[in-house]
Amino acid sequence: MTQNSATPAFILHTPQLGENIGAAARVMGNFGLPELVVVDPRDGWPNDKAVTMSAGSPVLGNARVEYRLGDAIHDTTRLYATTARPRGMEKPVMTAREAVSDMKAAIEAGEKVAVMFGGEKSGLPNEAVNMADVIITLPVDRSFSSLNLAQAVAVIAYEWTAGEGAPAEFEPVSDVAKREDLERMFEHFETELERAGFFHPPSKTPLMVQNLRNAFIRGRWTEQEVRTFRGAVKALTLGRGKARIVRED
Amino acid sequence: MTQNSATPAFILHTPQLGENIGAAARVMGNFGLPELVVVDPRDGWPNDKAVTMSAGSPVLGNARVEYRLGDAIHDTTRLYATTARPRGMEKPVMTAREAVSDMKAAIEAGEKVAVMFGGEKSGLPNEAVNMADVIITLPVDRSFSSLNLAQAVAVIAYEWTAGEGAPAEFEPVSDVAKREDLERMFEHFETELERAGFFHPPSKTPLMVQNLRNAFIRGRWTEQEVRTFRGAVKALTLGRGKARIVRED
Repeated sequence: MTQNSATPAFILHTPQLGENIGAAARVMGNFGLPELVVVDPRDGWPNDKAVTMSAGSPVLGNARVEYRLGDAIHDTTRLYATTARPRGMEKPVMTAREAVSDMKAAIEAGEKVAVMFGGEKSGLPNEAVNMADVIITLPVDRSFSSLNLAQAVAVIAYEWTAGEGAPAEFEPVSDVAKREDLERMFEHFETELERAGFFHPPSKTPLMVQNLRNAFIRGRWTEQEVRTFRGAVKALTLGRGKARIVRED
Repeated sequence: MTQNSATPAFILHTPQLGENIGAAARVMGNFGLPELVVVDPRDGWPNDKAVTMSAGSPVLGNARVEYRLGDAIHDTTRLYATTARPRGMEKPVMTAREAVSDMKAAIEAGEKVAVMFGGEKSGLPNEAVNMADVIITLPVDRSFSSLNLAQAVAVIAYEWTAGEGAPAEFEPVSDVAKREDLERMFEHFETELERAGFFHPPSKTPLMVQNLRNAFIRGRWTEQEVRTFRGAVKALTLGRGKARIVRED
């Protein structure tokens, strides 16, 4: 296993305003969080307004820019989504404080941790929230709940630094599969299900796919488990008696 | 004694940028803090940029503007100063969390509480810090300590609300499948894997079975998820195109 960082990466998903990216980089610098990933910024990259608002934060210069969320989280093993509205998903919902404790325990256990923040207009899309292990909600007033992107970053960054030590409640899973491995497993499984005519009616395919993925994500499978399951799918699709040949590929 | 508010007032002392005043008003609205006082804003009042950045926060429209700090705090009985650099004064220095507890106790006791934030350029002047009962310091990185004004407001506003009783720390999964349903799912899956020649060498079968089961159990699947997965296995084992018939069984 490679050496993972001692801090969570913060991922800004399709941010619109350079000002907010810069402000996020600034407050991350204030609270000692060096790793910023920007996914598909609306106004391109580099961004002058981001530079201005970062007030010289070294976090901005070191930011990584990706154009697909999958690339941003390819080596993440524990992923948090910040959203004001948990959408009735079967995922743990934590306060920022609880989430920070959870992150610290996960990092302690060798995991690669990332926190996603949605864009200004509509927050994180369901597809992104679905990929998360944990939902973080902030205690905003229901009558005025729209938190500025950089302010949401400020709160989590502050909690990271202010937070007390990690509690023992986290059950570490060693060698949790990276998101890219999980993604490939999903694609493999879904492709075979598609071929088998499983998704019926077609209009329900996205929902069925999402429900299946959620179920798997929740289990926090290890690399070995992902390999095993992929072997299982292969065996089933090849039919009786032929699996052994393939497993020797 | 007049009826005092149940929340602290936030005082921005000689802020420069309307954007920061608006952002402060916005995040105060997010976290349920209605009382904003602006002392001698550099660019006058009202301020269009403040309006834009407030995103419609009612806190901005209700803000009180004063031109002397003394007028801003005239009815305050307990005053907090936020500063990154306690200047060796003989005052209690608290973290944001400690200060929020202190504020709540003070308000409970009938006090009128206010928190001061300094302007962008140089923070609170010594004269203002001197007037405070308590200094609040945020845990910023010494090498990059300059926190944006609205971000400092965000952190204290967040602490005010987060400091309330902790919500349930784990969102329970509804309709977690009974163990007997899970057991049947395992047997189904394993039977098909056995038929497909997946378990090889046979001596390793018990271990492979156990590892697969552990992975599934950890996800705490719902009844619906169990049904879906069983449908998926059925589809795969029946091969392409035939699944639909079986799913109508």
